[in-house]
Amino acid sequence: MRTRFQQGLDDLRQRLLRMGGLAEQAVDRARQAYIDRDLARCQVVLESETLINTAEREIDEAAFDLLAMQQPMAVDLRFILAVTKINSDLERVGDQAVNIAERVMDMVELPAADLPVDIARMGAAVSAMVRRALESFIEGKAELAQAVLEMDSVVDRMKDDAFIQLVKTMNQRPEVVRQALDALLVARNLERVADHATNIAEDVIFWVQGADVRHNATTEDHSEHSPTHEAPTRASGI
Amino acid sequence: MRTRFQQGLDDLRQRLLRMGGLAEQAVDRARQAYIDRDLARCQVVLESETLINTAEREIDEAAFDLLAMQQPMAVDLRFILAVTKINSDLERVGDQAVNIAERVMDMVELPAADLPVDIARMGAAVSAMVRRALESFIEGKAELAQAVLEMDSVVDRMKDDAFIQLVKTMNQRPEVVRQALDALLVARNLERVADHATNIAEDVIFWVQGADVRHNATTEDHSEHSPTHEAPTRASGI
Repeated sequence: MRTRFQQGLDDLRQRLLRMGGLAEQAVDRARQAYIDRDLARCQVVLESETLINTAEREIDEAAFDLLAMQQPMAVDLRFILAVTKINSDLERVGDQAVNIAERVMDMVELPAADLPVDIARMGAAVSAMVRRALESFIEGKAELAQAVLEMDSVVDRMKDDAFIQLVKTMNQRPEVVRQALDALLVARNLERVADHATNIAEDVIFWVQGADVRHNATTEDHSEHSPTHEAPTRASGI
Repeated sequence: MRTRFQQGLDDLRQRLLRMGGLAEQAVDRARQAYIDRDLARCQVVLESETLINTAEREIDEAAFDLLAMQQPMAVDLRFILAVTKINSDLERVGDQAVNIAERVMDMVELPAADLPVDIARMGAAVSAMVRRALESFIEGKAELAQAVLEMDSVVDRMKDDAFIQLVKTMNQRPEVVRQALDALLVARNLERVADHATNIAEDVIFWVQGADVRHNATTEDHSEHSPTHEAPTRASGI
């Protein structure tokens, strides 16, 4: 029984990684679509939303089934709860990619404008955050997750700068007000992706550190209900 | 043991209702602050963020402890998972209220501008959605939750209208571009609150309908591990 449960945990982990890959790809495509004014790529991002939403539901169901299958030890429980939270953040990363693609589709209809904002640089930073947040999950390492938290304030500053510069542009060049607004909203969407990456990193820390901290307490808590439980192992080892 | 668990479920429910009250209040205050250009009220919203964040963590821990305490039946498991999801949406409702308060603080520094957007009406619709989503949770009624889903498209349309009108204003009246942008971002924040209310309503449906649908399958699933389980009762009855 324990083995089937462990296989279930491993399957859950693989599913979340695939989901993470989809969300990361959607953001990469959306920011590339912005740079290249590429409508076809926007369309691909829009279509990926259904895939991501389906993946989200399947992961939630898999997590539910695991929790219903047997009483998990605290370390596995933390892992499963972290997965459901990360899952929901990844789905919202996908939503932000869709929002960006929609802004790009609006921009492409308008004359191209030279704007005082480096979306490419900000997008690269944000993509790196998502990638590292997923790496911290794969490795089960709080240090990697911590690095993501530190990158968040850099992205926040980029967004604030973009905001200031673009509002100035809107004031001074009414003819490009809509393009500037689109760019500003893209900057905001990127900042939100960074926020989700931060949430994911925090969930990894909750899982990994909780695993260490609650180790002993949990063995005691559970012993009366399930005396046959083995000693908890790090869920990162699955 | 079962009784202590049921008390735990009831406590979790009460905590989430208090959290919901805080989030709803934050949105109401933020939209009122917009209407009255009221800096003091913005400050109260900003201060409520800490309370809401603390409540979120406590609810997550309480849910974790309940899951660790004993192997819940499927109906209770769905309830607990719905609570953790609703919890996370309520925290983000609080974040949106803070974003609105920050926009208002920016607006109050600028000359008042007459803008073609009815934030009061949109805010009232959004607050109603949050309230009804919480009611659907309290009552455990999918029909109430369904009504929230239907209101979402109305709010989306309001946001789209606001967007079109305010972009026009930015084009034609460069002197109020920043005020119009603040209003546009407030409209966007309100739309996001509506999205979170929609998520909450969906979680209520997942909980309530899952309870009905999975009833029999689950009793079978569990029988081999925990033959002493009573027949599942509707979690809405706690």
